[in-house]
Amino acid sequence: MRTIISIIGAGNVAWNLAQNLEKKAYPIAEIYSRNIANANLLCQKLLTAKATDKLDFSESEANIFILSIADAAFEEVLKQIKLPNDAILIHTSGSQPLGILEKTTSQIAVFYPLQTFSKTKKVDFSQIPFCLEANSEKTLNIISDLAKSLSTKIYHLTSEQRATIHVAAVFACNFSNHFLTIADDILTKNKLDFEILKPLLRETLEKAFVIPPKEAQTGPAKRGDKNTIKKHLDFLENEKNYKEIYQLITNSIKNSEHS
Amino acid sequence: MRTIISIIGAGNVAWNLAQNLEKKAYPIAEIYSRNIANANLLCQKLLTAKATDKLDFSESEANIFILSIADAAFEEVLKQIKLPNDAILIHTSGSQPLGILEKTTSQIAVFYPLQTFSKTKKVDFSQIPFCLEANSEKTLNIISDLAKSLSTKIYHLTSEQRATIHVAAVFACNFSNHFLTIADDILTKNKLDFEILKPLLRETLEKAFVIPPKEAQTGPAKRGDKNTIKKHLDFLENEKNYKEIYQLITNSIKNSEHS
Repeated sequence: MRTIISIIGAGNVAWNLAQNLEKKAYPIAEIYSRNIANANLLCQKLLTAKATDKLDFSESEANIFILSIADAAFEEVLKQIKLPNDAILIHTSGSQPLGILEKTTSQIAVFYPLQTFSKTKKVDFSQIPFCLEANSEKTLNIISDLAKSLSTKIYHLTSEQRATIHVAAVFACNFSNHFLTIADDILTKNKLDFEILKPLLRETLEKAFVIPPKEAQTGPAKRGDKNTIKKHLDFLENEKNYKEIYQLITNSIKNSEHS
Repeated sequence: MRTIISIIGAGNVAWNLAQNLEKKAYPIAEIYSRNIANANLLCQKLLTAKATDKLDFSESEANIFILSIADAAFEEVLKQIKLPNDAILIHTSGSQPLGILEKTTSQIAVFYPLQTFSKTKKVDFSQIPFCLEANSEKTLNIISDLAKSLSTKIYHLTSEQRATIHVAAVFACNFSNHFLTIADDILTKNKLDFEILKPLLRETLEKAFVIPPKEAQTGPAKRGDKNTIKKHLDFLENEKNYKEIYQLITNSIKNSEHS
């Protein structure tokens, strides 16, 4: 049976996934968004997909339905969605268990691309780790083929393992990125350019790829350099909650020395 | 006059700077460390340098002295150091003002390489931003030539600007790296491999190079995804101070949406 895919959602993950699946010759039948304008925008990037704001897919020609929506929208969408018989329902969330799809249909799976996506920047899909899980070997084989067509990095993980990775990813990526935002804010306020930090940023990352990050740690907290820490805290006195963050992370670095 | 350099310190910065200056044909006369064994280790990597644990350089043939020591050691070292007449004294600290060298000698400068160094990993010096400052144009010219021989990225900055960059660098690099340590810790405890995060880490950094980090922010805090945030906080319940950090950074991301 030929695989035909419909995608529920038109956010960053749906946006990137739909276009990359089509490139691998999987036809996309429908793109759903509560706001049909968003579905239309994505359909304009695709060959055959139709935009819809209805969750009744009982007449759809698709046999795989990929749910790429905000975690907060799961309950509402799963209550309303109607699928064709024998369709496979997949979600792409890092933090939702496989079981959340259980009441909706019988063939269910998770297809979680561990990557950060935006609509404006293309990502090399071949390097994205895909974390897969399904409620039967047959379904797992089908979504493994789908994942292997996109990427060389396939992981079979339980819902618990995926949730753990998701927490770690929030620290390593979302929270790190916020520190880049804080650095950018501090520099911009003082008429300095974020550009000057880029070689240091690149090296910090490169290091984490060759030695464990704990060993790569440098800076005043690691050295226990009280004078510099005090100067920095004074500097941050009137800056939002930056002083509180500086203090907490500095203490955490000190404590991790002894663990 | 031929430039001959001695370096006070044998830590990570001294270790990398001494070897790169020698490569550019600057002879290194002495390496000082309070612990002469450390000075000896560095001298073994150099052609002509002699190790010393004495701060009396009045008979030294060097005319540039580079102070690469922990900020906490400045007071003690500057009290004891004896330099030849007409020597230039330079420090490499991000957070110390130029003025700290004022009482020691008349030609003073700062030569701050904005990079993270370790003894085990080589860094491409040509891409390191050098932040320079001096108390005269003559001295600034001399250290500019020195910096230009090592790197293409030369910045003339005041002590205040350098201190601001140093605070920003602590957030963007030291603190980000600590989040990689936390991610590594969470994964390792759950028998998962840090490796799986690397494509996401690389993309997070690449994004920060092409769009402002505030625009690149993704994740549950940015989306206001309360269910996922609650799940993560529950998961972190018994993990050191990770729960407190998660809460504070999540709030900071939410607040920066409105600023």
